[in-house]
Amino acid sequence: MKMKHLISIKDIGKKEILKILDESEKMEELLKSKKVIDILNGKILATLFYEPSTRTRLSFETAMKRLGGNVIGFTDIKNTSVMKGESLADTIRVISGYADIIAIRHPSEGSARLASEYATIPVINAGDGSNQHPTQTLLDLYTIKREIGKIDGIKIAFVGDLKYGRTVHSLCYALSLFDDVEIVFISPEELKIPREIIEDLNKKENIKYSEKSNIDLTGIDVVYMTRIQKERFPDLNEYQKVKGIYKLTRELIYNKNLIVMHPLPRVDEIDSNVDELPQAKYFKQSFYGVPVRMAILKMLLEK
Amino acid sequence: MKMKHLISIKDIGKKEILKILDESEKMEELLKSKKVIDILNGKILATLFYEPSTRTRLSFETAMKRLGGNVIGFTDIKNTSVMKGESLADTIRVISGYADIIAIRHPSEGSARLASEYATIPVINAGDGSNQHPTQTLLDLYTIKREIGKIDGIKIAFVGDLKYGRTVHSLCYALSLFDDVEIVFISPEELKIPREIIEDLNKKENIKYSEKSNIDLTGIDVVYMTRIQKERFPDLNEYQKVKGIYKLTRELIYNKNLIVMHPLPRVDEIDSNVDELPQAKYFKQSFYGVPVRMAILKMLLEK
Amino acid sequence: MKMKHLISIKDIGKKEILKILDESEKMEELLKSKKVIDILNGKILATLFYEPSTRTRLSFETAMKRLGGNVIGFTDIKNTSVMKGESLADTIRVISGYADIIAIRHPSEGSARLASEYATIPVINAGDGSNQHPTQTLLDLYTIKREIGKIDGIKIAFVGDLKYGRTVHSLCYALSLFDDVEIVFISPEELKIPREIIEDLNKKENIKYSEKSNIDLTGIDVVYMTRIQKERFPDLNEYQKVKGIYKLTRELIYNKNLIVMHPLPRVDEIDSNVDELPQAKYFKQSFYGVPVRMAILKMLLEK
Repeated sequence: MKMKHLISIKDIGKKEILKILDESEKMEELLKSKKVIDILNGKILATLFYEPSTRTRLSFETAMKRLGGNVIGFTDIKNTSVMKGESLADTIRVISGYADIIAIRHPSEGSARLASEYATIPVINAGDGSNQHPTQTLLDLYTIKREIGKIDGIKIAFVGDLKYGRTVHSLCYALSLFDDVEIVFISPEELKIPREIIEDLNKKENIKYSEKSNIDLTGIDVVYMTRIQKERFPDLNEYQKVKGIYKLTRELIYNKNLIVMHPLPRVDEIDSNVDELPQAKYFKQSFYGVPVRMAILKMLLEK
Repeated sequence: MKMKHLISIKDIGKKEILKILDESEKMEELLKSKKVIDILNGKILATLFYEPSTRTRLSFETAMKRLGGNVIGFTDIKNTSVMKGESLADTIRVISGYADIIAIRHPSEGSARLASEYATIPVINAGDGSNQHPTQTLLDLYTIKREIGKIDGIKIAFVGDLKYGRTVHSLCYALSLFDDVEIVFISPEELKIPREIIEDLNKKENIKYSEKSNIDLTGIDVVYMTRIQKERFPDLNEYQKVKGIYKLTRELIYNKNLIVMHPLPRVDEIDSNVDELPQAKYFKQSFYGVPVRMAILKMLLEK
Repeated sequence: MKMKHLISIKDIGKKEILKILDESEKMEELLKSKKVIDILNGKILATLFYEPSTRTRLSFETAMKRLGGNVIGFTDIKNTSVMKGESLADTIRVISGYADIIAIRHPSEGSARLASEYATIPVINAGDGSNQHPTQTLLDLYTIKREIGKIDGIKIAFVGDLKYGRTVHSLCYALSLFDDVEIVFISPEELKIPREIIEDLNKKENIKYSEKSNIDLTGIDVVYMTRIQKERFPDLNEYQKVKGIYKLTRELIYNKNLIVMHPLPRVDEIDSNVDELPQAKYFKQSFYGVPVRMAILKMLLEK
């Protein structure tokens, strides 16, 4: 990897992304071989979670431990009273003396970038506010590649809250690096994809998009569902109406040759009887977070 | 082990229990050899504690690490805000993609069974409400076997709160699988052993029991003490009276050939000057939790 | 090591301190070699933190994991509800059955000593209230030795809150074991070094001291900065005045041949533009906590 840190998906080009996806595939094979892996034996990952995110934390810890490495860290700012009053910069400099690599989760936008400026070891952004969460984007790409066989030329529908979901925004950007991708944005008026993302897509020749308010999945390869949060609606009746319309049911995907993705946790935007269908890939997607994070940890530590 | 999961002591027969106790003895010998053990090298245990139970959690983690394995997990629902709104089923499916085996502690009865239905990896019940805590029952049996030399034919007295203690109920059931066990229930009227347990015992021919309200330990092999909780008494005076009567003192066991057990934590139902007596086995009992849990982890993962 | 536990710096003589510093140097070399270390493979450290102290906890965990060992523990009393109502003695006896060594942090003075009396495994005091934190003192000594080349004959200035800082008190004691050390206490009137420490120093012939209220660092080898806490001042104006005077700036140490130490976390008593100066050693000091704690863990476990 050319990069020292992984802060934003926008820092890495298509070539690096493909390298990470290739390495992730090797990691998945290693996992399947059930062999004991000691690639990162003796190394320490620090998981600095300034806000709780159990799923992301456990995925990073699993990745590190599967590679034979160790983990130190904290799970919540409330347990770090000693660090109260201490600047993020100082904490990072202290942790740089303990660990070999950092995964940081922080509620403030830009905090991961700031951390990387003070760290003497690699830093991975595990989510900084509504800004970036690059390992999520990479595992989304990996899921598409593994389950569809390719990323170029796919037709993907994003459904639900397209306004606030950083996952959707980052994946849109990443897909725009590939060829002939077609995006269908499906959302209520209140939660449409931001105009700046549309403007970015307009500048690219290799990507097409359209916007809709009803779920029609004809010709779609990938349905990317998102959670619609009640808090986003000033009028509760509006929410109830919208919620019903954007719920993925068995009927909607019956006999269709597509895959269903979701960054999880889901609440009720996917009917639970969809879970057993072969199209449902969201739990596999969650599992793919492990080999993808293994690849990133390995590549950043090998430099 | 025939079973895929360990949810309730009632799921396993005497033969399986004996197999676990045998394996536990091997594990205890391994621990004593001070050799580095790598039986579960590369494996990951997920400790999903939806309510805190430090002792049980640390015992499971110790068992896994003593076997050379790794641990991921959370210690409290409050630190898992991301998982809020997510169903237990979804969490279990996600964790099945990370870990090799799960130990779950949950305040709701039946939750461990539910988890086992969605998991693609083995699930161990580490306590679900007032229902089951099978590894506690197995370590209780192991303590009796190691300290008395046998389980068949013992005479055991349960003392204190026999109404609410799931530990006592499960151990009663397990003992009813053995031969010629005699149980003496010693409790205040308010905290008598539930009638359904008595009815179950009535159906068995190989087990005898009696009920008392005063502590008389003549002829007893095992005294199993329990905590009497203040909250159980509407009248505080009643509690004070009862508390005094059911306190185990040096005098009560002086010169008697018996062992004293307690699931811990104790508050003041055992006088601290009993601790140094050779009959006091409650700290050893706590230690035995490690080899017993090692055996269970190993057997479930070897399948 | 002659000692079974490490509770107070006052329990160990100069000879033992030097042995620990020598071993720490070996540990630092091991760390630098980037080799996988398996000296404590299979061993378990229990970090029992009855109050949060993230930095100290992570330093201990790093030390143990760098040596190839494992860690169990808890980070806060609030997550140990099960242990509520249980005596410290009982908890220690239970943990003695799980782990090989304990690092305990507790708000009450004397608790670590109490723990060591009930433990059947070595106990390290990781801070008991305002009393002792011996590994901090040892890493302070190690920093001086590594960065100045010697401890005998140094001239050290303690600056800031000298009244409440246990770090300063313990280091004063430790320095009094060495030859020809000269101490300059620099503090506001309200936060002067306690008279009992002055009396102790008066008894020693090998150590000189003086007290000042202004920062003059002429001839000083080591400046040991401490945090001045707002809460200590009844009058906020007094605090504001004092805060300004005791702030270490570039100008104060410009062209001076000295090192700056700080137990961290710092708030604003050291100007951030001091960080890049070669004299700034506080982050290195924090790093030295790892090899020093490795040495202590190894020496106590080797007995």
